[in-house]
Amino acid sequence: MSKYWSAVVRGLTPYVPGEQPKIADLIKLNTNENPYPPSPAATAAIAAAVDGALRLYPDPNADTLKAAIAAHHGLKPAQVFVGNGSDEVLAFVFQGLLQHEQPILFPDITYSFYPVYCGLYGVQYKTVPLDEGFRIRVADYAQPNGGVILPNPNAPTGCLLSLEEIETLLQANTASVVVIDEAYIDFGGASAAALVDRYPNLLVVQTFSKSRSLAGMRVGFALGNAELIDGLERIKNSFNSYPLDRLAQAGATAAMEDRAYFEQTRQAVIDSRERLNDELAALGFEVLPSAANFVFARHPKRDAAQLAASLRERKIIVRHFKTARIEQFLRITIGTDEQCGALVKALKEILGA
Amino acid sequence: MSKYWSAVVRGLTPYVPGEQPKIADLIKLNTNENPYPPSPAATAAIAAAVDGALRLYPDPNADTLKAAIAAHHGLKPAQVFVGNGSDEVLAFVFQGLLQHEQPILFPDITYSFYPVYCGLYGVQYKTVPLDEGFRIRVADYAQPNGGVILPNPNAPTGCLLSLEEIETLLQANTASVVVIDEAYIDFGGASAAALVDRYPNLLVVQTFSKSRSLAGMRVGFALGNAELIDGLERIKNSFNSYPLDRLAQAGATAAMEDRAYFEQTRQAVIDSRERLNDELAALGFEVLPSAANFVFARHPKRDAAQLAASLRERKIIVRHFKTARIEQFLRITIGTDEQCGALVKALKEILGA
Repeated sequence: MSKYWSAVVRGLTPYVPGEQPKIADLIKLNTNENPYPPSPAATAAIAAAVDGALRLYPDPNADTLKAAIAAHHGLKPAQVFVGNGSDEVLAFVFQGLLQHEQPILFPDITYSFYPVYCGLYGVQYKTVPLDEGFRIRVADYAQPNGGVILPNPNAPTGCLLSLEEIETLLQANTASVVVIDEAYIDFGGASAAALVDRYPNLLVVQTFSKSRSLAGMRVGFALGNAELIDGLERIKNSFNSYPLDRLAQAGATAAMEDRAYFEQTRQAVIDSRERLNDELAALGFEVLPSAANFVFARHPKRDAAQLAASLRERKIIVRHFKTARIEQFLRITIGTDEQCGALVKALKEILGA
Repeated sequence: MSKYWSAVVRGLTPYVPGEQPKIADLIKLNTNENPYPPSPAATAAIAAAVDGALRLYPDPNADTLKAAIAAHHGLKPAQVFVGNGSDEVLAFVFQGLLQHEQPILFPDITYSFYPVYCGLYGVQYKTVPLDEGFRIRVADYAQPNGGVILPNPNAPTGCLLSLEEIETLLQANTASVVVIDEAYIDFGGASAAALVDRYPNLLVVQTFSKSRSLAGMRVGFALGNAELIDGLERIKNSFNSYPLDRLAQAGATAAMEDRAYFEQTRQAVIDSRERLNDELAALGFEVLPSAANFVFARHPKRDAAQLAASLRERKIIVRHFKTARIEQFLRITIGTDEQCGALVKALKEILGA
């Protein structure tokens, strides 16, 4: 604690991201990266942009990328905001659209960065418990609030809300912004992007890190009414004129345009998830129904922290949260079928099954 | 103005960056980019990192890059903070180290992003006038404050403070953080990085955008006491775990390690600046003494806005600020000798010289 720190820094409890270990030959199933490489069109576009023009600033407005995202979702470019990963987009959302007098609402079990953003920007919040099946009940959000934010599918549970449920939430909540954080939506859900034209208080956040295999390039975006987007642009232009570098813009644009590769790889992940689901169930795990590129599972007879440690000894890492209600669960990223097979083999050994 | 915006957004006056025009064959002398491409080692390192590993998150702590920066400046990695361009680094500095009860101090004529950050984070500030020669007088900063920030050399004047003057400022100001924003220091000044080990309240901010020709990759950094750096890390880890993508880390590391190319290109820019200085003086311009990769000049008989418009007609763009005291100056980025020659030729035509 330094006397030079501002009051905000003194009060912060920073987010702890999943480990990015520097160990070779690890099966890394802990941070929900895609097991497949980015679209060849994306890597080609990036490679083509590696030249002397890197001496020049990038397009501060990322117009080409916004046009590609808008076209994909059937929206206008003025309904698209882009940022340096969806974490930066979310930070701007908390500061620009969720910082009001009343507390905001989010699930008690959800993306653990949300309370950290609240600390960073002095946003009051109230958590809303998941039900006994670890599901979000949208009726519980029909109460006065300064905003609502929830991931769909939720993290780390993977449980999905239908578009009808999202619409019920929006109809009961018109006075504040409703943020649907869709980092994992492409692995099994319907995007609320389809509702943007009808609900001026809806903001949808997505990322290139998961279904488009570009976690290493840091690109996220938001879709919403042009007035909401303009609020985010005002924050961005008061923070960093050029948050997305030239190569990130080039790669993300090409990835968004390669629809065939996107469909093929997300279907491969979905298929692997369904197989892994069945294999974990056969080993006695309780697996929550997942619409994401991970599963959330617990074994009735084995301690989750010990299971994670035993997997680690076998060079397989998964994520374990020491959080009330979910401390007996493991969050396991869907790898290739080979990686999932190695996981199941290791679990069989550990369980003596 | 939307009812969904937070109070902060409603009150913002965003920064307006220099134009990034999408016009071919323009001589672009308006945003202080380097006329030379990045080090071939940097583009090679970036190209080598364009592969399937882009599906994985980057190193959240950028350890390799921090080690390269620390080695260059003779510091420890714990004394180095890195961010998505020095604009992001500065934003964290305002929120984490300059947000105190007393107003901070900065020059009345300086980087126009500073008051924008103050608006974003509710930081009170007081401006300190430059003297009649447009120079910073460090004695004027010996007054109670919540922090001091100034660019060295200053922008948009290009005027340099000596290390002795910086040290005088530090000795008169031990209770708050002193930030020296050295975006342009490599074009003619001595870095205050040499003072970091002796002044626990000194923070030095630098960028890869200017002297290392990587504006398109967005990498900036800060050097300071480990406690100050830790304060910035706490902000960063409450905002975005991974602000620097894989390619930015690879390119910046290689650029920092290629000392020979850095020395060669910065000397070329300095030589061009001195020639341009002389040629502008011969045309009747008053040119402030510049230690940067731009010059700040006014013509006693010609209106600056009209000169800028006449240059633009000839496909040469420079920067003009409609700001009190400097509205008759043009800020001209140092281009290649060929570009500087074209500028001088155009000015001769416009002036009828």
